[in-house]
Amino acid sequence: MAIRIFMTGGTFDKEYNEIDGSLFFKDSHINEILKLGRCKLDYVATTLMMIDSLEMTDADRGISFDNCRRCAEDRIVITHGTDTMVETAQTLGRARLPKTIVLTGAMIPYKFGSSDGLFNLGCAFGFSQALPHGVYVAMNGRYFTWDNVRKNRKLGEFEEL
Amino acid sequence: MAIRIFMTGGTFDKEYNEIDGSLFFKDSHINEILKLGRCKLDYVATTLMMIDSLEMTDADRGISFDNCRRCAEDRIVITHGTDTMVETAQTLGRARLPKTIVLTGAMIPYKFGSSDGLFNLGCAFGFSQALPHGVYVAMNGRYFTWDNVRKNRKLGEFEEL
Amino acid sequence: MAIRIFMTGGTFDKEYNEIDGSLFFKDSHINEILKLGRCKLDYVATTLMMIDSLEMTDADRGISFDNCRRCAEDRIVITHGTDTMVETAQTLGRARLPKTIVLTGAMIPYKFGSSDGLFNLGCAFGFSQALPHGVYVAMNGRYFTWDNVRKNRKLGEFEEL
Amino acid sequence: MAIRIFMTGGTFDKEYNEIDGSLFFKDSHINEILKLGRCKLDYVATTLMMIDSLEMTDADRGISFDNCRRCAEDRIVITHGTDTMVETAQTLGRARLPKTIVLTGAMIPYKFGSSDGLFNLGCAFGFSQALPHGVYVAMNGRYFTWDNVRKNRKLGEFEEL
Repeated sequence: MAIRIFMTGGTFDKEYNEIDGSLFFKDSHINEILKLGRCKLDYVATTLMMIDSLEMTDADRGISFDNCRRCAEDRIVITHGTDTMVETAQTLGRARLPKTIVLTGAMIPYKFGSSDGLFNLGCAFGFSQALPHGVYVAMNGRYFTWDNVRKNRKLGEFEEL
Repeated sequence: MAIRIFMTGGTFDKEYNEIDGSLFFKDSHINEILKLGRCKLDYVATTLMMIDSLEMTDADRGISFDNCRRCAEDRIVITHGTDTMVETAQTLGRARLPKTIVLTGAMIPYKFGSSDGLFNLGCAFGFSQALPHGVYVAMNGRYFTWDNVRKNRKLGEFEEL
Repeated sequence: MAIRIFMTGGTFDKEYNEIDGSLFFKDSHINEILKLGRCKLDYVATTLMMIDSLEMTDADRGISFDNCRRCAEDRIVITHGTDTMVETAQTLGRARLPKTIVLTGAMIPYKFGSSDGLFNLGCAFGFSQALPHGVYVAMNGRYFTWDNVRKNRKLGEFEEL
Repeated sequence: MAIRIFMTGGTFDKEYNEIDGSLFFKDSHINEILKLGRCKLDYVATTLMMIDSLEMTDADRGISFDNCRRCAEDRIVITHGTDTMVETAQTLGRARLPKTIVLTGAMIPYKFGSSDGLFNLGCAFGFSQALPHGVYVAMNGRYFTWDNVRKNRKLGEFEEL
């Protein structure tokens, strides 16, 4: 079984710019993370965009959908900012592709050392290989179907509607 | 959905004794790890033993089996040393309990900072919630059924027979 | 020999707010850092303020000076944001107190895991115990006298005039 | 001012062998550490040996002494295992070279993430640039002269005689 990973940015991949103190994107850390995780599963990782999910447009979501539809793999993990992860899940979910698509992200950048990203990505890897076709959000050690999830912005957690 | 976690020790939970330079077990780090992972799934974590898996006896495997059989949950994650993880999986697998049991571990202690443990535990969480009843090993980003897996000791990886 | 530590904030002590993605101050991490460093030197640590050094006013510098002058110890380490560390060093240096005062900071927050803060604080501890009376900046593994140092903002490094 | 660094091994540079669970030496991490510390001081780093200090022989101490004597720099930092750091300091101290030599090490390997090594190395950098000629041990945030220090093996700390 091979899986496809699409990276779109989000907190997961943010870095700290030590010259001006801002947060920014350079490259995705996915290969570094999967090497750390001794991952031996076949995978192809593609960066679709590297943006904050608050800046994600309908056009960006269209790009994500096109890539999910056209790629050869039917097991897909998408790394995504948490703020609009649910919106992207809904866009993908309504299309009812015959694929298992799992969106995940992080509350703390991977590079900051105490990130939830490594655990979340592991969960997403597990869910994407074992869940039936559908679109899911994998956060907080759980999975949610695309049509029954929201981010509780106060707590920084995902929950059912 | 609630899951049960049984901890048995292994590299995952080893620590460095700075006085004599040896590796040893103190407590499991599972709660610390799941807090880092912002895990909000209901779980109960129980330490069965804290040993190197090379020291695991048939009696220890009996304890693991009894606990799997008697616990209320039918989704179980077991943290275990990698050296004899397959043997324990076989003991549990032959019993054909109507439960999903996923064994996982680490090649590098969690406390050493660059451990695969956080990713592996995430994978095990994903698999345990989504795979059908059976006994599985979750390592290297993949899952293996209990009767088709071995540890390649030279590479430090798991593979099919 | 006892030393005094005054904390004023700066990148050193910044944390990541996972709810809104901003950087903020909670508490100083100095005690945590010195515990990690197995520090057994007698020290007293006092938080004077917890601010970005770009926001530091003359009044704040007055507070820093008063505290340096009045404390019992004549070996002082000040943690400070790098952007105006030189200005504070000049304020303190012109006063010519009969004390050894060493300012240090970090380019990366201590909590982000790959910080220079631990090394810089070690350097400042060494310099503060061994240099003659005077005011110094300890950054980049070196020390600079207060009247012969500037921050090269492009490189994020300190250098002589 | 340029300093010389001699690496001899010790806990500081130990790594975890994930295949057999042992601790071993590969290379020194000194360049990686000084890059993390944004060190811009001129330095030359030379590996003399990579051994546990319990295995250090008189011949090894002779090599260390020869290198200290013959190198061009008169500011020297030596990374060393803590168990026999004092013995090496005594060998070097009795020779009364007209140089400032600072020995340091770590209780936890640098690669294990929560090491005191980065702080200790910072202290050693500070002391080596600011103390008068002599031989010193820099541990626990302090410095000790070579003829007035011992390791308290029970506490894992250095103290005066």
